Amino acid sequence: MANKKIQKVFFISDSTGITIESLGQSLFTQFPTIQFEKKVFPFISNKKETEQVISHIQEISSQDNNPPLVFTSLANEDLKNLFASNSITVFDIFSSFIPAMETHLASTASHVIGVTHGVGSTSKYVQRIEALNFALSHDDGMRVNDLENADIILAGVSRCGKTPTCLYLAMHYNLKTANYPLADADFESPSLPQAIASYQERLFGLTISPPQLCKIREERKPNSKYASLTQCKYEVARSETIFNTSRLPYLDTTTTSIEEIATSIIQRLNIKTLGKW
Amino acid sequence: MANKKIQKVFFISDSTGITIESLGQSLFTQFPTIQFEKKVFPFISNKKETEQVISHIQEISSQDNNPPLVFTSLANEDLKNLFASNSITVFDIFSSFIPAMETHLASTASHVIGVTHGVGSTSKYVQRIEALNFALSHDDGMRVNDLENADIILAGVSRCGKTPTCLYLAMHYNLKTANYPLADADFESPSLPQAIASYQERLFGLTISPPQLCKIREERKPNSKYASLTQCKYEVARSETIFNTSRLPYLDTTTTSIEEIATSIIQRLNIKTLGKW
Repeated sequence: MANKKIQKVFFISDSTGITIESLGQSLFTQFPTIQFEKKVFPFISNKKETEQVISHIQEISSQDNNPPLVFTSLANEDLKNLFASNSITVFDIFSSFIPAMETHLASTASHVIGVTHGVGSTSKYVQRIEALNFALSHDDGMRVNDLENADIILAGVSRCGKTPTCLYLAMHYNLKTANYPLADADFESPSLPQAIASYQERLFGLTISPPQLCKIREERKPNSKYASLTQCKYEVARSETIFNTSRLPYLDTTTTSIEEIATSIIQRLNIKTLGKW
Repeated sequence: MANKKIQKVFFISDSTGITIESLGQSLFTQFPTIQFEKKVFPFISNKKETEQVISHIQEISSQDNNPPLVFTSLANEDLKNLFASNSITVFDIFSSFIPAMETHLASTASHVIGVTHGVGSTSKYVQRIEALNFALSHDDGMRVNDLENADIILAGVSRCGKTPTCLYLAMHYNLKTANYPLADADFESPSLPQAIASYQERLFGLTISPPQLCKIREERKPNSKYASLTQCKYEVARSETIFNTSRLPYLDTTTTSIEEIATSIIQRLNIKTLGKW
């Protein structure tokens, strides 16, 4: 990686900058030979702050003798124009899409600061916090008697990725997700454990490659039976038997990110969160 | 809200669709009079799947007599061209930015599916899981003896938003965030509690309006002293005294989203996560 060309990037936003940074990341995957060094400038909302960022860009530009890439998501036209009047090329998400959207929608954009990652409606915010509290209080099979309130129940062996996935589903989709760890007693039968058997339509299985599981468990409890490859192989095989016998949808988390796991679960359980009609 | 025009939206992605949906949300804030009904189609990666989505679009289009908005993030040009050959206008994030980026970077885009929300490097993924485990095991002042390993320590009264913020900082910025609840014993003095006093540079305070706190606590423990407005007022006032006495940066979470709180904390503690140079 030592030979990669380095390219500095500014992300300038009037709110958190989360959307624009995520967009940038997505675009950067198209230029694998370049190493992008990013800096986010959130909450830029007036002339003074914008001018400070512009000085910073000019400084970097002359230091490196290479103009940085500048991404902006600024609803205010006056602030955006400050870049042009300082001869700085920007990639602006509003300018790139809004004009064509105005035509398509036969509607005029407001050009006031919108808040993508704001609180939004109070009820949605309360839902989100409730979903997070639900995930926390139903982690690791705690409170199995309350599963009828879960939107999703994840089953799988210890350390296969259930907890991070539960938290992500709660944080991003306001889904109440419980987490049922498959353990010794459950492996005696190929059927679903009694505690979760009646929730088939909300159940989703996670699995993982035994060597990867072994590695993760070794860090937690080195040289234990729990972490041994033999035990990991046994548990994974038994859990997959349970998933197959019950025709449960399941996913291998070994090389899958939390975002990908969450998206797949929602898609395969056909949960309405991905869409409305 | 009953009079809002309804506009259906398709988000079509070859990976999770998270970036493009977030971009869409951001653009939609510019059209407050329209109610956007979204549907995400993730993991669209071949001709057959693309053609299925196209049929779906055509169906909706003739049903509603109003073409839906179609956002795509498809790296593969052949798949993208299927939309054009079916006379469907798309807002494509790659087409909108890549050509100008190619010029600016003097580099050619790869046009292979990049994975923005994939696992990425193994070390980063491990960091993320470790940060999440750290947040979970340091929630609610547990294990205060291990605070030297924290990147950030959040202090505030019970139910002011510490836990969701910790989880968000871990999930999205791989930051190990601990959470110290200020409680009765801490309020006897205006100074920082001893357990956290030596970590001043990593400390950040959260506060909240007493009526809002009262509402949140009432749901948890109705009619308790804990939830009473008097108690909430007392705790919030004392916690703010502690923050002010110690010149701790702090933030009111009452009308602030988790994303905004997290971004502000990183910005104000000057944590390198927002940038590199």
